[in-house]
Amino acid sequence: MTFDTGLPQRAWVDGREAPAVALRDRGLQYGDGLFETLACLPSGVRFGQLHLGRLAAGCERLRIPLPEAHVLRDEIACAARGDRPAVLKLIVTRGQATARGYAVTGHERPTRILLRYPWDPPAPAAAGLRVRLGDLRFGENPQLAGLKHLNRLEQVLARMEWGDPAIAESLHCSSSGALVSGTSSNVFLVRGGALLTPRLDLCGVAGIMREVVGRVARGLGLDFRTCPLELTDVHAAEEIFLTNALTGIRAVRELAGRALPQGPVTAQLQAALAPLLRHAQEAPP
Amino acid sequence: MTFDTGLPQRAWVDGREAPAVALRDRGLQYGDGLFETLACLPSGVRFGQLHLGRLAAGCERLRIPLPEAHVLRDEIACAARGDRPAVLKLIVTRGQATARGYAVTGHERPTRILLRYPWDPPAPAAAGLRVRLGDLRFGENPQLAGLKHLNRLEQVLARMEWGDPAIAESLHCSSSGALVSGTSSNVFLVRGGALLTPRLDLCGVAGIMREVVGRVARGLGLDFRTCPLELTDVHAAEEIFLTNALTGIRAVRELAGRALPQGPVTAQLQAALAPLLRHAQEAPP
Repeated sequence: MTFDTGLPQRAWVDGREAPAVALRDRGLQYGDGLFETLACLPSGVRFGQLHLGRLAAGCERLRIPLPEAHVLRDEIACAARGDRPAVLKLIVTRGQATARGYAVTGHERPTRILLRYPWDPPAPAAAGLRVRLGDLRFGENPQLAGLKHLNRLEQVLARMEWGDPAIAESLHCSSSGALVSGTSSNVFLVRGGALLTPRLDLCGVAGIMREVVGRVARGLGLDFRTCPLELTDVHAAEEIFLTNALTGIRAVRELAGRALPQGPVTAQLQAALAPLLRHAQEAPP
Repeated sequence: MTFDTGLPQRAWVDGREAPAVALRDRGLQYGDGLFETLACLPSGVRFGQLHLGRLAAGCERLRIPLPEAHVLRDEIACAARGDRPAVLKLIVTRGQATARGYAVTGHERPTRILLRYPWDPPAPAAAGLRVRLGDLRFGENPQLAGLKHLNRLEQVLARMEWGDPAIAESLHCSSSGALVSGTSSNVFLVRGGALLTPRLDLCGVAGIMREVVGRVARGLGLDFRTCPLELTDVHAAEEIFLTNALTGIRAVRELAGRALPQGPVTAQLQAALAPLLRHAQEAPP
């Protein structure tokens, strides 16, 4: 999906307004860091607690010391403040390299980067999407799976597969054939009354909206399962929708030329999700 | 291998001395770029033509417009100049993002970054290395295989597996079990008179020294083959050595506790390579 929200209006590094990061930052050198994309409404940051929880879990897995929680919270709150909706991109890298080479010396201090972009939140009942099947297969590495890390060349190459602006997204499998996600969205299938989304133990990003929609589905008493899926499951699905922190749930109305109905499960979830997206809260109930 | 050559002495962005890169550079945001590590001797840049050839091939595969060759050459020559050996790290990114999201708009202009580090070239007959078998398995993606791109989190995590300074490197396989490389070196095996190095069609970096050693081996009339290899081939090898643009050929004297002889093929190749490393030339004969 393209969220062309233009260029950043303001940017901060380690709490100070700044346009640039040190060349020897390991974020640039190796993609050695993580990021979060936060929807900011006049009422505050949407699902801020979930985003910071995922960031903390990612830092732990990559053994990046987590910046102090109150510092992050204050900087995000300050950058998010405004009358107009905005997207905040938060990047946390391992910090500036203290020596050449991949080895972590233990003397690095994490770098906190914030970029604020103008944003028009999409209408909740936006029309369904046309989606293609992508050729690129994501590499599998359980140690990186689920993380929203800075190594995103696969997504860049996947997004380069098409130029037609009528196509919103492409769905991709992993090297061994497991269904993973879109280039910047998670995917859900409805099949035989069950709601299914791919397990992300080999690759993919565990999206915040994926988590929120899962909680909403359980709250509605739906038969919701996270499980291994393949392309055959996509072809057999009765409904398909995509999730993303900025857009919520978007129905797929056409997949690789096949028309799909905007079905009842998708509509039910969209209706239940809509009030949670309208006003900022730390986490869904 | 650890090449702790300290911090950069000087740095340039797009030909001007600068310490930082724009926050919206896609190199930082997505690791959307490539790099080269150049050995600079008082006589010039070693194998500069091979490095620039690999960079050009990488840019073509990632569809990053290649900076003009004469501009790159001039900037490298200027940064490399000096009485003392140095390492130059050249980074070329797709440039600053012109919109939010993964999509390439076509309006990006590549960013050229140069970092100059002090360097003590290793003695040619340096003692053999102690090497371990790494646990991390590299993800497989033919579209990224061979490229020296900026998505290096796997190497960072691989290098975090050990802290013992007596261990110089770890060898890693891919997710499907193919032997790939060290964390920052390519690997060669000698077995039954043949010299073997892994095919890098699924993952790994096609190192410049790997290329040079291959040419030297062919020149010596050795039975040299690039082929799929597995861990069993490593265990059955009579000689093992690692290559890297800065260190040339390093014999492995111990692999995961097994002592290895510093054998005749490794010694023959080291002797043939040594004169090529001493003085800078554009490419090996």
